[in-house]
Amino acid sequence: MRTIEMRDGVVRMIDQRKLPHEVVIAEMTDYRTVGVAIQEMWIRGAPALGGAGGFGMALAALESQATTRQDFLRDLERAGRELFATRPTAANLGWAIERVLKKTRAANLSVRDLRELVIAEAQSIADEDVALNQRMAEYGASLINDGDTILHHCNTGPLATVDVGTALGCIIEAHRQGKKIHVLVDETRPRLQGARLTAWELMQYGVPMTLIADNASGHYLYRGIANKVFYGADRVAANGDVANKIGSYKLAVVAHENNVPVYSVMPTSTIDMSIATGLDIPIEERGEEEVTTIEGVRVAPAGVKVGNPAFDVTPNKYLTALVTERGIVYPPFTENLLRVMDNGEG
Amino acid sequence: MRTIEMRDGVVRMIDQRKLPHEVVIAEMTDYRTVGVAIQEMWIRGAPALGGAGGFGMALAALESQATTRQDFLRDLERAGRELFATRPTAANLGWAIERVLKKTRAANLSVRDLRELVIAEAQSIADEDVALNQRMAEYGASLINDGDTILHHCNTGPLATVDVGTALGCIIEAHRQGKKIHVLVDETRPRLQGARLTAWELMQYGVPMTLIADNASGHYLYRGIANKVFYGADRVAANGDVANKIGSYKLAVVAHENNVPVYSVMPTSTIDMSIATGLDIPIEERGEEEVTTIEGVRVAPAGVKVGNPAFDVTPNKYLTALVTERGIVYPPFTENLLRVMDNGEG
Repeated sequence: MRTIEMRDGVVRMIDQRKLPHEVVIAEMTDYRTVGVAIQEMWIRGAPALGGAGGFGMALAALESQATTRQDFLRDLERAGRELFATRPTAANLGWAIERVLKKTRAANLSVRDLRELVIAEAQSIADEDVALNQRMAEYGASLINDGDTILHHCNTGPLATVDVGTALGCIIEAHRQGKKIHVLVDETRPRLQGARLTAWELMQYGVPMTLIADNASGHYLYRGIANKVFYGADRVAANGDVANKIGSYKLAVVAHENNVPVYSVMPTSTIDMSIATGLDIPIEERGEEEVTTIEGVRVAPAGVKVGNPAFDVTPNKYLTALVTERGIVYPPFTENLLRVMDNGEG
Repeated sequence: MRTIEMRDGVVRMIDQRKLPHEVVIAEMTDYRTVGVAIQEMWIRGAPALGGAGGFGMALAALESQATTRQDFLRDLERAGRELFATRPTAANLGWAIERVLKKTRAANLSVRDLRELVIAEAQSIADEDVALNQRMAEYGASLINDGDTILHHCNTGPLATVDVGTALGCIIEAHRQGKKIHVLVDETRPRLQGARLTAWELMQYGVPMTLIADNASGHYLYRGIANKVFYGADRVAANGDVANKIGSYKLAVVAHENNVPVYSVMPTSTIDMSIATGLDIPIEERGEEEVTTIEGVRVAPAGVKVGNPAFDVTPNKYLTALVTERGIVYPPFTENLLRVMDNGEG
């Protein structure tokens, strides 16, 4: 199944809090439960949250008791506000909600037809994400060869999107094409997305893999065991600098030092041409408890001071290429990103 | 108190398994309990294990019911074998036991005087470690300036030695000298020695510090916040390549890339002139459970394959200097280590 999907008025999603120990499929028929799921991170990952926003609105449309177009729109607007408030920093969530509202506002139809319109739009958002990720996966897979050992950071798999994934999508696609590969999955402290999610996903797809501590990746690069690095991107500047999960920068520097290519994979919607360089990207500082406790167990002294930057910036000189749904972008990034972004939808 | 000490026939040590949540002082009057403490890692760190080996032998000497020199020696040899078997890879443990035995075998004294001799030799082993570490700490502190922010990896503090520590000893000494410094302590997965021990030790000494995930150190180096790196060494080759806790190599490469000096601190007993380069140092692979479970809580899927190298090698080109009890050794390391090692003690 997809990370999130809707059928016959029921939204189903994998409850990622229970992974990797248990696969629990949560079913929901009201938009407020979708909001709870977003807030409590049963579902995460920017594209997946876009899907959740769309389907949350679809449930709100089904729930609305309105008999007039005006009342229906009012219900939908309120549901949109409530849903977005569950994770107001998630740009994709807001984008998907707004896309549904815009489509609905523009349509002069009966309430019954508006309901169908909302459901169809939510489905389009989900389907478009999958199609776009599939194009990215095929471009990325073309960079992977038989015999490769690939270092992967954080979680960028199907679970982070509606389906297919971004960086991990490329790796899974290469495996699907029959290439003989091995993946070194770093655990990705502090939130352990690598250990909890990426390792589990690769095992589901039967991709040969080994889980390692973040500290160990340098050893595998230095000894010539890992020969490619793949990770995602949270935000890309106009010069190709990539903001991504903390630890990406260290990994890229050490790979570069060992002449190992580094690929960052992202939809073009992640590229922000209004940001000149990575140093202009603000770095979110997250809560101390992510470092001091692991699954509820305290591992550091009481009262310790903690630094917990969620992201770091990889300067473009350490990146071999950026993989997007419109193709593979090589240096010089400032010129080539301009060309790709001007081309419009691929 | 010291990590381990002996007074009036009682050995006392800090039970490091309980840190950082509780400070428990274990008291023991028989050598077998010292063996259990070594085996179950109430005490760890090469120099501290040397201290434990010596004091374990001192308890064995007190416990022996022998009335003849021959019987006393037989009891002591047996205790030595039992103690060394509790952690047979710990070179310092074996060295300390053998040192006590050698001294005893060479002395033609009464059993009563031999007992005193063993206790005195054990005390010398502990005192010499503290004195040697203090010299190292003073050399290392001379490299630290007012305003420095120092990245530190793993645990190299008083708890890893009889007292004072190695790399962390330099940092604590600089603080004691009144230098205004800040320490970024990385947690050091998989065993979390940074979070559990180093953070606790620095808090005890009132040294300003911040705990971070291993993944975050690159961010602080790139942003110019951290301006020095200090770590210990498990084994040093004749060319100055350093084998140390997994993650040291990554940290050194990223520091070097940002023009931040990297100092590795070790007693000269850690330098093995018979090893030409770091590539000749075997890398121990440790158990999977160190990566898949944290304090007994499972964080990875059942059945996952794990890679867990305990150490990595930092090639000499990334090291600014090696700090020893005989002084600070700068490049070219091959020449300068030869000179230092030829100089003999002191």
